[in-house]
Amino acid sequence: MNTDSLANTPEPPYYAVIFTSKRTDVGSGYAEMAARMMALASRQPGFLGVETSHDDQIGITASYWKDEKSIHAWKEQADHQEAQRLGKENWYEDYFIRVAKVERAVELTAEAV
Amino acid sequence: MNTDSLANTPEPPYYAVIFTSKRTDVGSGYAEMAARMMALASRQPGFLGVETSHDDQIGITASYWKDEKSIHAWKEQADHQEAQRLGKENWYEDYFIRVAKVERAVELTAEAV
Repeated sequence: MNTDSLANTPEPPYYAVIFTSKRTDVGSGYAEMAARMMALASRQPGFLGVETSHDDQIGITASYWKDEKSIHAWKEQADHQEAQRLGKENWYEDYFIRVAKVERAVELTAEAV
Repeated sequence: MNTDSLANTPEPPYYAVIFTSKRTDVGSGYAEMAARMMALASRQPGFLGVETSHDDQIGITASYWKDEKSIHAWKEQADHQEAQRLGKENWYEDYFIRVAKVERAVELTAEAV
């Protein structure tokens, strides 16, 4: 699971889950769980890629999926459900989850969005 | 321009621009330009909010917009065009820009995506 590079997603359309969070001061267990969930997500059907960045204030994880069905299955996955519960209780002061349909994408060398 | 909190976006639908980048080793001028562009974007018509996170490897900025027209206008804005040119030349080893229509969103206390 490579988390220090960008996701080589296919041509749109596909779906993005934009998970943005503001952390609490509770650090215990977070990094291990985050790594475990990234590895687990990457083995789910319909997973296309993930990009994540965390600084002192804000964490953003964008994961990419073939369709809404695969997003739903990932949301319901048992270990992920437990991680969501722990996240709400311990690690997140605030978060947003936005589900969006990617319509267009460009990489570096392209001239126009 | 508050960049250490999450974006209080309205109810979907609206649009997201997911800008993910892998930086070069060139740091000069980057932070100032990034701050200037965030401030400038926030004054554009149709701007709904922005969230950004940068770590050693990856930067992710998710900006939210009322519609595709406002995204297009921001892309064409003159100072932003110059920033895009400098970014390609100096600061970004690789980047993706993904334009996506946000269909659903939940905040912390909600039970389901």
